[in-house]
Amino acid sequence: MEVFKEAAGLAAQGRRIIRMEAGEPSTPVPRIVRETAIAALNAGPIGYTQSLGLPSLRARIARHYQEVYGVPVPAERVAVTTGSSGGFILAFLALFDPGARVAIAAPGYPAYRNILEAIGVEVVTLSTSARDRHVVTAAMIEAEHAQRPLDGVLLMSPANPSGTMMDAATLRDICEVCARLDIAFVSDEIYHGLTYGEPAQTALAFGDRPVVVNSFSKYYCMTGWRIGWLVLPEDLVRPVERLAQNFAISAPTLSQIAAEAAFDARDELEAVKAGYAKNRALLMEELPRIGLGDFHPVDGAFYVFTDVSRFTNDSLDFCRRMLNEAGVAATPGVDFDREHGSSAVRFSFAGSHEDMVEGVKRLRDWLPRA
Amino acid sequence: MEVFKEAAGLAAQGRRIIRMEAGEPSTPVPRIVRETAIAALNAGPIGYTQSLGLPSLRARIARHYQEVYGVPVPAERVAVTTGSSGGFILAFLALFDPGARVAIAAPGYPAYRNILEAIGVEVVTLSTSARDRHVVTAAMIEAEHAQRPLDGVLLMSPANPSGTMMDAATLRDICEVCARLDIAFVSDEIYHGLTYGEPAQTALAFGDRPVVVNSFSKYYCMTGWRIGWLVLPEDLVRPVERLAQNFAISAPTLSQIAAEAAFDARDELEAVKAGYAKNRALLMEELPRIGLGDFHPVDGAFYVFTDVSRFTNDSLDFCRRMLNEAGVAATPGVDFDREHGSSAVRFSFAGSHEDMVEGVKRLRDWLPRA
Repeated sequence: MEVFKEAAGLAAQGRRIIRMEAGEPSTPVPRIVRETAIAALNAGPIGYTQSLGLPSLRARIARHYQEVYGVPVPAERVAVTTGSSGGFILAFLALFDPGARVAIAAPGYPAYRNILEAIGVEVVTLSTSARDRHVVTAAMIEAEHAQRPLDGVLLMSPANPSGTMMDAATLRDICEVCARLDIAFVSDEIYHGLTYGEPAQTALAFGDRPVVVNSFSKYYCMTGWRIGWLVLPEDLVRPVERLAQNFAISAPTLSQIAAEAAFDARDELEAVKAGYAKNRALLMEELPRIGLGDFHPVDGAFYVFTDVSRFTNDSLDFCRRMLNEAGVAATPGVDFDREHGSSAVRFSFAGSHEDMVEGVKRLRDWLPRA
Repeated sequence: MEVFKEAAGLAAQGRRIIRMEAGEPSTPVPRIVRETAIAALNAGPIGYTQSLGLPSLRARIARHYQEVYGVPVPAERVAVTTGSSGGFILAFLALFDPGARVAIAAPGYPAYRNILEAIGVEVVTLSTSARDRHVVTAAMIEAEHAQRPLDGVLLMSPANPSGTMMDAATLRDICEVCARLDIAFVSDEIYHGLTYGEPAQTALAFGDRPVVVNSFSKYYCMTGWRIGWLVLPEDLVRPVERLAQNFAISAPTLSQIAAEAAFDARDELEAVKAGYAKNRALLMEELPRIGLGDFHPVDGAFYVFTDVSRFTNDSLDFCRRMLNEAGVAATPGVDFDREHGSSAVRFSFAGSHEDMVEGVKRLRDWLPRA
């Protein structure tokens, strides 16, 4: 976010910055989403909705699980939220009391730790490395739980920043071990849809206990709309509804209406994804040639998380210099991994292909003097 | 919210329900807001913004304080939030540690207690009654603090549900006592603009320590857009920014763009307010005639909070029967005051004048058999 701000500042001064720091699509939302929003704006007031969301959107999200994964999910278990951020707060407050122990992966999304700690949860880090494909396993969870009992595990697949994805068997094992040991499992599936080989499996395929977090921000290109959802075990629906009534009232209404239309924009969204695939192919080929080849093959999402230890052991300083000297914005690894992130950088390839080509060119020129 | 849901359900079944339970305007947003949103939708991606909001909106909000109250506020102290709900979470987390003692008024907005308790704050109730115009005073705060020190005080003026407003001297005294006793003062000014006599004064007129919460939901008719703001003391800006980065990323972008235009819609908004004034006059005249005259004169907002003890001592049951038998939805007083709310009901007059006339007619028929 700090790099984002600095990059935005430089861009506002008229400098052309290649934005490879932002975790968001650079494309507008699909036409049908825009048209649906405009029609709603012209139709009348944009009032509050029920706290768990518009019934039609909840039903459409439920149908999505049947269509994409073949998993039946009743609409009653879906809660529409203000982005996945809004979902996390509700889910964490519903699941965890202060003092609870919750495990997350490192490297990982930094807001997890910050939100959990803000509500008094003790965060346990499960360290992963490129060697093990940045994948957390059931065995790691079981070992940590044996040391001191865990109340929750929170994992993202495909993952930010590593782009790694658990295979279905790994996910199933995690669901099983969490169910057996009575550990709440929160599955962050925000990058589903953005995979470049096998499609991602949902945790809901392995029982109705996992809490699934998802969002329209990534695959559906709706970051600034702040709209996402939770799928909850039945007994958490009412607690989350009560929390939502107090913490949010309801998610943004226009975004809810527009999001429902996003499910009908598959062709446009697949074209956007094909653009990411092209960007990914470029980076997978070119980054190794310029000394940034030490990363795990990117299964999904739109990030390359690469080792930069031959250039620096201070990734924050490295990113600052890269921004100011090369005009390329990227995110320092310390944001994702306090312990080992000082020698890593995350490049996002959600931008235009032209920007990716230019970014690689600038890095090729700059890295020898970095 | 439960009555809201039940009323929506009955309305969906085709029954004409007079909606006097909802705390939201029934009018569409002003034309210029709609047009600005549509233009933004057509212009390009709706991405994240900086976590504290679009710089132009922060500057416009700051200018609002100069224009309306004659109080200079630097844009740097403004944080754009996801409704006032999003603002509360950020402000409370920035201000209060678990175990902090924070005083609120009863009757009052129920989410205050629920949010504060969810983050481990001890909530202290300052009871008010119609006799004292439902106004909390500096003396009450000082007395409570003397018993056991307070860390914070959170007050709304004009108030939901009572419609009461502190005069400027009362507000000044509260600001002074809080500054003197080192108590954080959070001033919820969400109903500013909706006053029917004197205009409301902002706490910012009495120093830069108060945290002001506001929103585009009420005067600006933008409930479902989920857009609001905080004005913060300088030393809280950075902590709130950090929290916002993690808890929200940013407020809905389209809502931010549209909200900026709302400041230019004064004429349309004043016309909407004139409609509330007409509704208010009707209720002030008619409610006493049908046995609902025991309420404090409504200074602002769009609620009448009236005593119903001659009909019931269970306001929840009373509201359920009123909804089902008379087709009039209103909110039971227990939602706002656990201790004394069982003999009170809140009627909202944010609906159409036609609905107000019909609502009174239905109540006139129904109350004798209530």
